[in-house]
Amino acid sequence: MTGEYVPGLEGVPATRSNISFVDGKAGVLEYRGIPIDQLAESSTFLETSFLLIFAHLPIKEELLNYEAEVLSHRRIKYRIRDMIKSFPESGRPMVALQCCIAALGMYYPVNEGTIKEEHTYESTIRLMAKLPTMVATFHQMRLGNDPLTPRDDLGHSANFLYMLTGKEPDPRIARIFEVCLMLHAEHTVNASTFSALVTGSTLADPYTVITSAAGTLSGPLHGGANEEVMAMLREIGTIERVRPYIEDRLSRKQKIMGIGHRVYKVKDPRAIILQNLAVELFDKFGHSRLYDIAVEVERVCEELIGSKGLYPNVDFYSGLVYDKLGIPPDLYTPVFAIARVAGWLAHWHEQLADNRIFRPTQVYTGKHDVEYTPVSLRSYA
Amino acid sequence: MTGEYVPGLEGVPATRSNISFVDGKAGVLEYRGIPIDQLAESSTFLETSFLLIFAHLPIKEELLNYEAEVLSHRRIKYRIRDMIKSFPESGRPMVALQCCIAALGMYYPVNEGTIKEEHTYESTIRLMAKLPTMVATFHQMRLGNDPLTPRDDLGHSANFLYMLTGKEPDPRIARIFEVCLMLHAEHTVNASTFSALVTGSTLADPYTVITSAAGTLSGPLHGGANEEVMAMLREIGTIERVRPYIEDRLSRKQKIMGIGHRVYKVKDPRAIILQNLAVELFDKFGHSRLYDIAVEVERVCEELIGSKGLYPNVDFYSGLVYDKLGIPPDLYTPVFAIARVAGWLAHWHEQLADNRIFRPTQVYTGKHDVEYTPVSLRSYA
Repeated sequence: MTGEYVPGLEGVPATRSNISFVDGKAGVLEYRGIPIDQLAESSTFLETSFLLIFAHLPIKEELLNYEAEVLSHRRIKYRIRDMIKSFPESGRPMVALQCCIAALGMYYPVNEGTIKEEHTYESTIRLMAKLPTMVATFHQMRLGNDPLTPRDDLGHSANFLYMLTGKEPDPRIARIFEVCLMLHAEHTVNASTFSALVTGSTLADPYTVITSAAGTLSGPLHGGANEEVMAMLREIGTIERVRPYIEDRLSRKQKIMGIGHRVYKVKDPRAIILQNLAVELFDKFGHSRLYDIAVEVERVCEELIGSKGLYPNVDFYSGLVYDKLGIPPDLYTPVFAIARVAGWLAHWHEQLADNRIFRPTQVYTGKHDVEYTPVSLRSYA
Repeated sequence: MTGEYVPGLEGVPATRSNISFVDGKAGVLEYRGIPIDQLAESSTFLETSFLLIFAHLPIKEELLNYEAEVLSHRRIKYRIRDMIKSFPESGRPMVALQCCIAALGMYYPVNEGTIKEEHTYESTIRLMAKLPTMVATFHQMRLGNDPLTPRDDLGHSANFLYMLTGKEPDPRIARIFEVCLMLHAEHTVNASTFSALVTGSTLADPYTVITSAAGTLSGPLHGGANEEVMAMLREIGTIERVRPYIEDRLSRKQKIMGIGHRVYKVKDPRAIILQNLAVELFDKFGHSRLYDIAVEVERVCEELIGSKGLYPNVDFYSGLVYDKLGIPPDLYTPVFAIARVAGWLAHWHEQLADNRIFRPTQVYTGKHDVEYTPVSLRSYA
């Protein structure tokens, strides 16, 4: 064995990577070395995804080509729609998404035992393009509507919001959503990304790799925190009840949803950007009681526990933004997946470039040489 | 960071476990301390799965109850059948299986954020019971047949073979298949089991966990070796061509499919059991040219590379057995999954009992403080 057993492999290096970097003490997040705030200010989600996946900012021809390819692959096969029709309306959208992603592997088979370059490029385009359509299609169908066909005159974010809600969004709304996707596109080796590496290391097909990552994201300890923030804000209900609620939680040593982060000891740089977006959104498109409550939660938390390095994280404001955009809470994690698929694909490409199957070992704590006894001779110990 | 970076985490302990143990030098495999050959001799697949999952051999009442529960959950919902109808006939069965497993999570939702004991038991029963039905249903449907309803008068293995082939198997055939399932039920922390731990550590629902594991198994570096053994035996074609084939491969430093194992340096104990089963099968139910070729491959390999610790592994004979049982090659990995689901579930239970989300770290090899340049200013470096 190499080294001691560390639960959750916390701090154990599992890969070499040059995709993203986090400095939790300085509040820095970089994609391929570029600070996240510069990207949020000036880039687009598709450009950022290209940067993450192909390791450089695209020159003009590359960008136009990539955007055109993604646009032309937005549609999903009618048999995938048939599959979605067979899903129960009450099914969790995140599970529906997993099924749809996995099913792609039946339509776009990868040559036996080889993941060649054309497969990685084509499957990357398909996954970037089709996840938003899958999420919107399931959502429309569970409401009893026909799914909407992607609109080629709309960009990636605007088209998703259109397919999801049936309405063409205000361009400022689409831009805010676009920035949300960029902020969620990548964050080093968390559990979902790690599971993409593990699954990818057996040379499983790309759709299987992303299914595995999406499945891991679906766990409540990983995705889903922004849903819980919104539930908390609704539970609190009024500004006056914020302080007693926070004090009560703290006195019982319970955590405040959306406050604090495993890595960031200052305010999450993504939370700063998101808060600015939220201010802009609520200023321009109407106020929200929940937003006022959130601002008060942040104020009280900064006063009471800010000195402990517990500040709002990316999940604290993203739910508010999604809520204002008309996205239902159970789609927050699917929206996360639509963004993070860029990071998963980037890590999958990196894994394939220097692949070794994951095969850690175990500390065996069990018995040896136990004898099999026939059932007639067994009794409770 | 804790420790140095080890590619594939080889030899790095990722969990404490008392489920199975392998001694590759002595050729020992134990499930909960019981040597695999005792189980293969006297146990059944369902009893062995109970042993793996619930950590003891069941007393009579437990066993009868467990068998009855699994039997009563063999059927799959008609909407799952509808879903399978939407799959393309040419789709890989392993992908179809992943979709079906994931879809279960839409029908049997787990309470938000909690995996309680009743969920782990119920979902364990469902997964043990329904995987064989899913595999057989997809296979019948891709042939254009109606799927067969599980037969309550048949045991786990006999029922699967019946659903798959439409014929009730000879009890000796069913027993041989049963032993194959037992031999494949568990094998410490390989890649698929590890991905079950990673996905499970976010408290994702059990169907998602097993989807992730099955997906990881689908990669050609993990499952699928027995398919390749059969392809090799067909390629060789005659006994006379065995020696030149092997010598040619060895001279080009290529490996011989099904010979040698990462862990076992003597003959894989499962291969010994499987070879005996194969001998029995071909003696009783008719000879096979491929089997004769396999015997010659083993003889030549033992002569030429046996001294290097390269002996037949479990995959070397399993394909021959499955072939004789009428199972098509692209179902070998789904059959592996039907067996290994027991081990995955056992490890998932163990993970939940002492859970910590997997969050390893990365060795960052990239740049810092790169400036975002607008697309108009970019050019190839």
